[in-house]
Amino acid sequence: MRVLSRDLDQHIGKTVAISGWLHKRRDLGGIMFLVVRDRGGVIQVVVKDPDEQKKLEGLYAGTVVQMTGKIVSEPRAAGGVEMHSPEISVMMPISEVAPIEYDKPIDHTPENQDTLFDNRVYNLRNPDEQKIFRIRASLVRYIREFLTDQDFVEIHTPKLLPGATEGGAEVFKTDYFGREATLAQSPQFYKQMMVGAFERVFEIGPAFRAEPSMTTRHVSESTMLDIEMGFIDSHSDVLDMTQDLVYFALTSVYRDHARDLTALGAPELVLKPAFPRYTVAEIHEMYSKATGEKTMGEKDLFPAEERWICDYAAKKLGCEAVFATNFPIENMKFYHMIDPKDPKTVLWADLLFRGVEIATVPQREHHHDKLVAQMKAAGLDPAAPGFRYFLEAFKAGLPPHGGFGFGLDRFVQKTIGLQSVKEAILFPRDMKRLTP
Amino acid sequence: MRVLSRDLDQHIGKTVAISGWLHKRRDLGGIMFLVVRDRGGVIQVVVKDPDEQKKLEGLYAGTVVQMTGKIVSEPRAAGGVEMHSPEISVMMPISEVAPIEYDKPIDHTPENQDTLFDNRVYNLRNPDEQKIFRIRASLVRYIREFLTDQDFVEIHTPKLLPGATEGGAEVFKTDYFGREATLAQSPQFYKQMMVGAFERVFEIGPAFRAEPSMTTRHVSESTMLDIEMGFIDSHSDVLDMTQDLVYFALTSVYRDHARDLTALGAPELVLKPAFPRYTVAEIHEMYSKATGEKTMGEKDLFPAEERWICDYAAKKLGCEAVFATNFPIENMKFYHMIDPKDPKTVLWADLLFRGVEIATVPQREHHHDKLVAQMKAAGLDPAAPGFRYFLEAFKAGLPPHGGFGFGLDRFVQKTIGLQSVKEAILFPRDMKRLTP
Repeated sequence: MRVLSRDLDQHIGKTVAISGWLHKRRDLGGIMFLVVRDRGGVIQVVVKDPDEQKKLEGLYAGTVVQMTGKIVSEPRAAGGVEMHSPEISVMMPISEVAPIEYDKPIDHTPENQDTLFDNRVYNLRNPDEQKIFRIRASLVRYIREFLTDQDFVEIHTPKLLPGATEGGAEVFKTDYFGREATLAQSPQFYKQMMVGAFERVFEIGPAFRAEPSMTTRHVSESTMLDIEMGFIDSHSDVLDMTQDLVYFALTSVYRDHARDLTALGAPELVLKPAFPRYTVAEIHEMYSKATGEKTMGEKDLFPAEERWICDYAAKKLGCEAVFATNFPIENMKFYHMIDPKDPKTVLWADLLFRGVEIATVPQREHHHDKLVAQMKAAGLDPAAPGFRYFLEAFKAGLPPHGGFGFGLDRFVQKTIGLQSVKEAILFPRDMKRLTP
Repeated sequence: MRVLSRDLDQHIGKTVAISGWLHKRRDLGGIMFLVVRDRGGVIQVVVKDPDEQKKLEGLYAGTVVQMTGKIVSEPRAAGGVEMHSPEISVMMPISEVAPIEYDKPIDHTPENQDTLFDNRVYNLRNPDEQKIFRIRASLVRYIREFLTDQDFVEIHTPKLLPGATEGGAEVFKTDYFGREATLAQSPQFYKQMMVGAFERVFEIGPAFRAEPSMTTRHVSESTMLDIEMGFIDSHSDVLDMTQDLVYFALTSVYRDHARDLTALGAPELVLKPAFPRYTVAEIHEMYSKATGEKTMGEKDLFPAEERWICDYAAKKLGCEAVFATNFPIENMKFYHMIDPKDPKTVLWADLLFRGVEIATVPQREHHHDKLVAQMKAAGLDPAAPGFRYFLEAFKAGLPPHGGFGFGLDRFVQKTIGLQSVKEAILFPRDMKRLTP
């Protein structure tokens, strides 16, 4: 019966079996110190018997082993225990040295990124690297838990579409039995359509963008969290839901993964249940006053302003998540709702977290005729195949609604404090990278 | 403060507000009987006041309304209550009749399918249709819960690949910044690679297949559940995990959604915690003996045999899920493991449920050199870009492992007893259908 490394401290003084990978080996004065890795962590194994040592001759990290030995208390070891005098059985011998070392702290500097991604199969065997993806899985789990409790229905919408849904941005195209199909850049239209059925829906799935940009921020395939909710009384209902979701997910993950987050060098979480809210105009004013720097006037926020307001809110208000509201109409999408009280601005907020935007949180225009007018004003053709069924949902009757699109990869990146969004993705895709 | 229709029975005798869609209206002798739909269900509303009735003049199903009225007990109504004498407020008037009626039982006959899918935006407003997708969301939730409890890590693997991963079958292609990329037909290679990192992984995501087939079984985009687990002692470990997962998910959903499943005409669940297991050869023999019909000898199962064995197991053993094991090597994939005890067969089982295969559950060949040999024997080039990193994972050391790929759409279909897999998909995609 196999025992996982994380449970070995319950077996002190007993002889048990472990299975895993040979992770590290040192030979010191005739004594072999091994580290064995399994899904529960790592365990140090001390081998003195020359016959047992011989079984590992010429074998390297990655070798799959089974070991049966005595568990002894060892305060200096990770987990407080180690295994002594094992009987070793080699399940899969590995006699080649791995192209990269994966038993050391990871070099995450930009110059080393390509090496890490080229050797991702090995690199992901590093327990530190794995922490990122265990935290990611936890975030996703808490997000789903929150949304399910709030009556959201999880949906799966098609990724093969008859046309570019939002126009403009670059899309991947494919031949679809003689017709042209595009890969979904977001489930935007489908989630709005589904407000008419379920009121509240969410989806976590891939989104594709053929952006020819080589930065630490751009990937061609990302995982998006999308939610949409109907029957809102006002835009602030959507902000409340977003804030409650983010607060729940972050505090839960910081509680469950405290040690891993520290090991990864994540910053301390500075969060309050109610995130401060400022209009873009207010942020411009506060920023100019505090720094003496110029802003874009009534227009969009500069990256420096996004960093400044998060810093400000963290230090003065104890919350590093901030909503910037009332974006100017210049940058609006045709499906956003113009603020009836301030028609130069849109009912669109950005959720800023640790200096960057992590989600766009707008209310939608839910009146069919206004939506068609906004579509035309944006130079789009309401009769295009990608728009027909979207507009049909409005003809069928939609209540006031809003939601957000949320790059999961970036959220993971900012939660942990990773330099590049690509480090938060198992197998990232960018302009140059289509493998592994 | 809005009250959902499902909670109104806690407000009998009180005046409350509801919001939703006008779902149905009948005018009988000066009294208006309305049905209002919200995400909690439907509620009947009785309107006698001519001024209130006037507010709905010329308005049809889909009209978004708010109503404040008195909740009274009415045993004949769905939910046991109805609303009387409301004050009505129209939030979004709909003055066109919907192209299909969605307040009636759904006509699911094959001839009506295209009408349903063409009008999916309306059709999904039918509470009966919604039941399918609430059950689907529940199945997914219980599957995730089970796998998370069993230490599986949820992963997101890329859908844009450098080549067709499994060779042979038809793939969608796209231009990827001047190179050719294909859309993933499954996360097969990635999940096996990730056994080397996390031991146990799962993914729920889209898979794409450019199969030019127009049947009730074929779709070009489907949602797949994929799991993979390492350090198995034998193939039966994988069957055990599969069986426990399916048993947990099905019994949980049949418990939670009993009423909805009955309304949808789902068959009664006939399941035991341990699913019967027969080799393909045994099924051939049992089937021939019982029916006098011929079989394919040592080869694959006929559809009639799949139906027969499920029927047999349901009636004789009280379990309509059956494993057919030891498939003949003729149909093996190169990454399957040949049974060392019976080299004419493969350590590959099919999970049959209600007469059809819903999952293929094999053990994988985990020895690098044997795998390369099987690859070459299958006419594949181990040096192709789609294979390089897959093989690298074996060079890095993989333990014995297995898993399954599971068409979520088909599982939902068979759970509910739907005629076509497309009915289990919100917006199905097939050779002819790329919209809505």
